[in-house]
Amino acid sequence: MKIKIGFGVDVHQLVQNRDLVIGGVKIPAELGALGHSDADVLLHSICDAMLGALNLRDIGYHFSDQDPKYKDIDSKILLRETFLLVKDKGFVLGNLDATVILEKPKVNPHIPEMQKVIAELLETELENVSIKATTHEKVDSFGQQKAVKAYVVCLLEKA
Amino acid sequence: MKIKIGFGVDVHQLVQNRDLVIGGVKIPAELGALGHSDADVLLHSICDAMLGALNLRDIGYHFSDQDPKYKDIDSKILLRETFLLVKDKGFVLGNLDATVILEKPKVNPHIPEMQKVIAELLETELENVSIKATTHEKVDSFGQQKAVKAYVVCLLEKA
Amino acid sequence: MKIKIGFGVDVHQLVQNRDLVIGGVKIPAELGALGHSDADVLLHSICDAMLGALNLRDIGYHFSDQDPKYKDIDSKILLRETFLLVKDKGFVLGNLDATVILEKPKVNPHIPEMQKVIAELLETELENVSIKATTHEKVDSFGQQKAVKAYVVCLLEKA
Ligand SMILES: [Zn+2]
Ligand SMILES: [Zn+2]
Ligand SMILES: [Zn+2]
Repeated sequence: MKIKIGFGVDVHQLVQNRDLVIGGVKIPAELGALGHSDADVLLHSICDAMLGALNLRDIGYHFSDQDPKYKDIDSKILLRETFLLVKDKGFVLGNLDATVILEKPKVNPHIPEMQKVIAELLETELENVSIKATTHEKVDSFGQQKAVKAYVVCLLEKA
Repeated sequence: MKIKIGFGVDVHQLVQNRDLVIGGVKIPAELGALGHSDADVLLHSICDAMLGALNLRDIGYHFSDQDPKYKDIDSKILLRETFLLVKDKGFVLGNLDATVILEKPKVNPHIPEMQKVIAELLETELENVSIKATTHEKVDSFGQQKAVKAYVVCLLEKA
Repeated sequence: MKIKIGFGVDVHQLVQNRDLVIGGVKIPAELGALGHSDADVLLHSICDAMLGALNLRDIGYHFSDQDPKYKDIDSKILLRETFLLVKDKGFVLGNLDATVILEKPKVNPHIPEMQKVIAELLETELENVSIKATTHEKVDSFGQQKAVKAYVVCLLEKA
């Protein structure tokens, strides 16, 4: 089939003395995301969705969190490398739809900037990059501001 | 591309002295869903999936939970307004597949009625509206009957 | 529409004195998955995604966990029966993308074997069966090795 579906989900703990980078944008916040790289939960989920659509394994397989090369790395570099793998297979993004789960601060004001960053990295139109944000209604760690999660679905199309 | 993918996920706490409305159907239950509107976790997820597919932001953007206009509102109204936005863009529903996570009571007996309500609001055939239900196997708040969750994926097609 | 989307999610508790079977493969582990069947979280999610895509209800509807016939059953049998329902409707798998959430042990070394098992049951090419694995970053029960989860998205295509 010329259309492929992919899904990505990612989780990071929220801790003090770390930046909160989501969708390639640094968001002012009391707590930041813990991880080997810059811990960008949204870009990681997009990587996984695109890799999964073409059966190219996952983000941990390509960019190991044991590899010092990726320590504190800007995840925009990982997303760009992922896109080049996809492009090399002859596919382009149809559209993606992302959901960020974060209790606070509000993600919404930063969405237009995230869309711009992501659309550029994926060589696509802004309208193909949907980002939604919601809270976890105080439920469990995500609702108690101890962790952040993102889900992404995407369609890739044979160019 | 003429086909767009969308994804929605929603969570509500379960509390006493509230109704449990899922998929537009009031389900007899000891605990109900907490929220500004009628807290219909399934209809909210469908709204988000359809809005996301066309990059129309999300349910919180269109129907703010700070707006007294939406206090205790019937979410069927929100889903209908969402559908009209989609229709206005020249798209129709291909199909949607929903999963409701609720420990108890059983959702299954109510699924046929939910499908009828949703198919009518979305001007589609019953067969395009799949609703599945499962428990969370006693794990965390969803498994301990403290919260309800729904996931929805959908395909929209250029009419 | 000739293309249908489906989504499945499944959760099982991890306990002592049970096998850990994921994707039809027995994985050496201290803890196993609790359930009426062999509790294969990945195959169950695939069943649900494929059933949901064609509005054929869900795995609990077809294979009740109250039915002694399914006690400790090999979920490969359930996936095969699910596929035959799909085939009977005139559909084949486009592709599926799965994500297994497990804190430990590592799922990655077993993925190629899982893909082979699943592709054969679904009468499809290996490249249409993507399986990804990730941890839950120590967050909540999934992160504390008390439970395992799998998400699956799929596209089915009219043959
Ligand atoms: Zn990550
Ligand atoms: Zn809601
Ligand atoms: Zn199961």
